[in-house]
Amino acid sequence: MTIETASAAPPKESDFVQRQAVTLYDQHPLTLASGRTIGPVTVTFQTYGDLSPNRDNAIFVCHALTGDAHVAGRHHPDDRKSGWWDAFVGPGKALDTNRYFVICANVLGGCQGTTGPTSINPETGVPWGPDFPFITVSDIVTVHKALVDHLGIERLLAAIGGSLGGMQVLEWAARYPDSLASAIVLAAGAKLNAQGIAFNAVGRRAIYADPAFKSGHYYGDGEAPRFGLALARMIAHITYLSEQSIELKFGRKLQHSDELTYDLAKETEFQIESYLHYQGKQFVERFDANSYLLVTRAMDYFDLIESRGSIASALGKTDARFLVVAYTTDWLFPTQQSREIVRSLMETGRDVSFAELDSPYGHDAFLIDSELPMLDRLVTPFLETTYRSKVEGRRSNSS
Amino acid sequence: MTIETASAAPPKESDFVQRQAVTLYDQHPLTLASGRTIGPVTVTFQTYGDLSPNRDNAIFVCHALTGDAHVAGRHHPDDRKSGWWDAFVGPGKALDTNRYFVICANVLGGCQGTTGPTSINPETGVPWGPDFPFITVSDIVTVHKALVDHLGIERLLAAIGGSLGGMQVLEWAARYPDSLASAIVLAAGAKLNAQGIAFNAVGRRAIYADPAFKSGHYYGDGEAPRFGLALARMIAHITYLSEQSIELKFGRKLQHSDELTYDLAKETEFQIESYLHYQGKQFVERFDANSYLLVTRAMDYFDLIESRGSIASALGKTDARFLVVAYTTDWLFPTQQSREIVRSLMETGRDVSFAELDSPYGHDAFLIDSELPMLDRLVTPFLETTYRSKVEGRRSNSS
Repeated sequence: MTIETASAAPPKESDFVQRQAVTLYDQHPLTLASGRTIGPVTVTFQTYGDLSPNRDNAIFVCHALTGDAHVAGRHHPDDRKSGWWDAFVGPGKALDTNRYFVICANVLGGCQGTTGPTSINPETGVPWGPDFPFITVSDIVTVHKALVDHLGIERLLAAIGGSLGGMQVLEWAARYPDSLASAIVLAAGAKLNAQGIAFNAVGRRAIYADPAFKSGHYYGDGEAPRFGLALARMIAHITYLSEQSIELKFGRKLQHSDELTYDLAKETEFQIESYLHYQGKQFVERFDANSYLLVTRAMDYFDLIESRGSIASALGKTDARFLVVAYTTDWLFPTQQSREIVRSLMETGRDVSFAELDSPYGHDAFLIDSELPMLDRLVTPFLETTYRSKVEGRRSNSS
Repeated sequence: MTIETASAAPPKESDFVQRQAVTLYDQHPLTLASGRTIGPVTVTFQTYGDLSPNRDNAIFVCHALTGDAHVAGRHHPDDRKSGWWDAFVGPGKALDTNRYFVICANVLGGCQGTTGPTSINPETGVPWGPDFPFITVSDIVTVHKALVDHLGIERLLAAIGGSLGGMQVLEWAARYPDSLASAIVLAAGAKLNAQGIAFNAVGRRAIYADPAFKSGHYYGDGEAPRFGLALARMIAHITYLSEQSIELKFGRKLQHSDELTYDLAKETEFQIESYLHYQGKQFVERFDANSYLLVTRAMDYFDLIESRGSIASALGKTDARFLVVAYTTDWLFPTQQSREIVRSLMETGRDVSFAELDSPYGHDAFLIDSELPMLDRLVTPFLETTYRSKVEGRRSNSS
């Protein structure tokens, strides 16, 4: 018999996750892929679990386009929501913080604490805004790697990420081949296809066309390009869902009435419209338009094949084990894109596992709680095997 | 041996197609699905070929969202472009104007001559603008049917249309079951799915958010919501293409250079971006934003199942022969939607042919010249059989 009152005890301070920040590139600025330099760079990150004495149990989570470092848990007892991957990261969960030390950092150019367009430009004393340098996935990974170095971790047990996060994982394996024991790539590709560029382009156009955007100089007067940013999010959100899931969830259901109103001014007559408006509205509360432009463009620019000749030459140098996961109804990164990565890895003799998971939820499936047990069943044994073969194996080899 | 000079002779006046217009509902106004009335209604249309003495060879072409009555030919020797289905309609073509009398009319609420928001509201003396009544696919078909009556045609050999045009054909068969010998439905469905509503909604949002839109009152000062309308078109255009066709045509090719510029201000760096901007720009030259809002909403509202209980009960009264065509890569109206219509028609014992055509061109395949021979091979014999069985057959039965 368990003592029920124990679980009703008020949470302790230690139950909450802390936002951490570190300043890097304060001595020597970072040279970006564009050739421009930036420094210092503040990196906001969160960690979960404990780093082992051998510093061999660290997992880096690369967040997607509009994610942030707050991957799991709550900062404060009053927080309404937990981190964005709370069902996947924590004690006893897939990224088991009883065993692993999990790190997640906001990306360079982001707007959740890491240096980005909303940060103060030290040369002008005002926010960078549109003058923030152009960034690439490679630049994002450079900064993440610098954080990992700063934390004294020579080699990660794994880097894991979905979508733009998956691109970061691929880039990491290409750029720092010895720094990963494994790489987990979810719902991603070696490059964004033309349709993906097209959707990013119309989203950015919505921001550019908003008169409040003012060529990116909108921080001063407090009026952000809310319409444009919300619309960009609404468009993008459609691409994160599958036709099947929208149909199941909303279909042609009306929002407020059983009867059509025949009123053109009614913008949210169908539930799907109301849902998209809600998504847009929520998004502008937490995201910055200049950041959105930067990070979507970084995604457009990512091309492992163009930058390194081929996927095989990009990933041929690492001995990391790979787990590549696609979702059946993901049309932003169709399974074909994952297969291309897997084929190249196999051709260069890499250790790679591949799964196409059956989910109705489209691209966002890797973020949806109900779909995570399926992913957990792949990731948990993959990490265990990685730890046994790459960490314990290494230790016993070197002993 | 042919006399080559004959084909080099200058075109005669009769080689050019004439825009025609008729005023309907001038005695009694039209009561719309919304309950509002409108009248008179001017209908702009074009005809090709000659109506047979028995008036039994007429084919009505229902145009899609942004089409118009100018389905084939040129109005003037200096016209740069022929009508939108020129490769499909004409002497010896699929809709063979040596044999058939082809009619196409601009839709109610449109902006190419038929009464719509840009027309003068007789009660105010100024353009209707946003006060134009809400219209539905049913209203559009009512007006088309009134035009056909006006032309003295009791029964059409066929109504044919793709996308919103296909919806009109379905509605026509449901609403006027005795008026069609056949119905040809291309790349359409019995209703728009939630994803389709979502894309229309974000397109409309782009227009609403354009400050030049001024709640639709923008005709006076000559500045139209060009940004918003262009963006709406850019978004929609992505849905008309397939991932495969965009990838083949554009991929990640750059527009002006071999090198990435790392310049966020460069909105058309990739060819696909430049292409979409071009499409947007072209579109605003020929289309009106208030019309776009109206006609996309008519498309959202269309639901043969909701309006008539089921597809079977909607289409069970007509004895028209059906030809239903879907395209493999059409993701706006996936083949599943055509199958649903076909299944219902079969269950009610209708005469229906179905084909899923293999094309890389997505939803727009029915408009693309290279894909038309494939459609021609279905439509030509279908029309011949229809004529033999439904027209000649009828005549010999009644004689």
